[in-house]
Amino acid sequence: MTAQPIRTAPTAPAVVTVENPDAKGRFVICCEHASNAFPAPWGNLGLTEQQQSAHIAWDPGALGLARALAGALDAPLVHAGVSRLVYDINRPPHSRGAMAVQSEVHAVPGNIGLGAAARLARTEAIYLPFHDALRAVLARRAATGPLPVLATVHSFTPVWHGRPRAVEFGIIHDADPTLARAVLAQARARTRLDARLNEPYSAADEVTHTLALQATPMGLRNVMLEIRNDLLQGDADQRQMAATLAPILQAALAAIESPEPAKASH
Amino acid sequence: MTAQPIRTAPTAPAVVTVENPDAKGRFVICCEHASNAFPAPWGNLGLTEQQQSAHIAWDPGALGLARALAGALDAPLVHAGVSRLVYDINRPPHSRGAMAVQSEVHAVPGNIGLGAAARLARTEAIYLPFHDALRAVLARRAATGPLPVLATVHSFTPVWHGRPRAVEFGIIHDADPTLARAVLAQARARTRLDARLNEPYSAADEVTHTLALQATPMGLRNVMLEIRNDLLQGDADQRQMAATLAPILQAALAAIESPEPAKASH
Repeated sequence: MTAQPIRTAPTAPAVVTVENPDAKGRFVICCEHASNAFPAPWGNLGLTEQQQSAHIAWDPGALGLARALAGALDAPLVHAGVSRLVYDINRPPHSRGAMAVQSEVHAVPGNIGLGAAARLARTEAIYLPFHDALRAVLARRAATGPLPVLATVHSFTPVWHGRPRAVEFGIIHDADPTLARAVLAQARARTRLDARLNEPYSAADEVTHTLALQATPMGLRNVMLEIRNDLLQGDADQRQMAATLAPILQAALAAIESPEPAKASH
Repeated sequence: MTAQPIRTAPTAPAVVTVENPDAKGRFVICCEHASNAFPAPWGNLGLTEQQQSAHIAWDPGALGLARALAGALDAPLVHAGVSRLVYDINRPPHSRGAMAVQSEVHAVPGNIGLGAAARLARTEAIYLPFHDALRAVLARRAATGPLPVLATVHSFTPVWHGRPRAVEFGIIHDADPTLARAVLAQARARTRLDARLNEPYSAADEVTHTLALQATPMGLRNVMLEIRNDLLQGDADQRQMAATLAPILQAALAAIESPEPAKASH
């Protein structure tokens, strides 16, 4: 496994890491909210330790799932190393959510009243290198072989603003719903997961920036995978979920690329 | 004027140059086909000197127009320094047009039978640094101030496959036609140019890759400007056309951002 970390400073966690860059599979796995690190120069933004470990800071379990999925699919994995509360790389720089002043019910003191220079510095240190690295992975594959397929891996909290969520596996699309619909069909055929299209979020919530930026303009098939984080609480759960999802993704891609589409089975 | 050239080697022309990065205007000007340079390691691709100076290799007059327009609009200018026959940065790496084996009636010997390693090398040396540089210009502005507006500047040949073209000023849009339509309205109101929407090309011809990659996912207003190259034959013509187009672009942007749209004048 080859990793290519890009660090802001020698002691800082990598802002972006590319694992398995030369993997042979069709999929490229991306995990934007992999980390709850609050490195210098940003620090903890005035958040408590409990807040820093909560879902507002990252997608708990998503990196373990993404890594196991990349292994099962022989895919490169591109993941971030900084909390989304420092910069949410699934948002453009002008989005309110890029450097959010509040997440769910929690204020983020270090993001309140951010000036232009601070916004610029985070954009340059986190957003641009992450997306440059992901773009390079995708463009290199597009230049040389069959078109890559982008799957982003996220987790969501089982309770949001006090309300429990029944959905277990959300499958979200950007402009092209083809792969997402095929993944949904395979998930329903192969698992008992409560799988739903465009839940608990959809493109209307601005959650598909990475897909819109990296896949849609290149004409690449793409999908965003959201797993409820109580299903990803430890390594074993994460590996098991990857073992469930990998054949779903493979079958979904095969179905949409088949010259003679399989008949719908009602 | 501050230039930030990115070179493939100390003696090579810059693959991408950013002029006026700190300019204060809303527009960012991009000129993808600015150069007919055929630097090492690619060389002339087996083309004659006449072919290397023809419109198949670049957009004659476009850089002079783009530079004058950037000056008039107080805009950054991002331009390429390598012929589009080496790599057309307005095409994704998997496009047949990215490293075309034929342009109009001319074969491009050095592009025939290109292997994966050669395609990868050109993608990494030209396509990725150009678009990384343009993205950085746009993202920095998005992070700090009012949203930038992307205008790409091209020229087209008056005769194509033996057929004369009447259109003088083509205004082409990607997914969002708002700015293009406003530019057309201003061009018709303010000039005698034969101005047309989505001529001589349109998004269906895959000519809006830069807009689709750089502006559409960021929600930035954008337009592609195509000027017939017989109107850009010397510095004076290029400066005059810039003096014509700059107020058209400013007025078009003002019209679409006006809180109370001006009434249509029939």
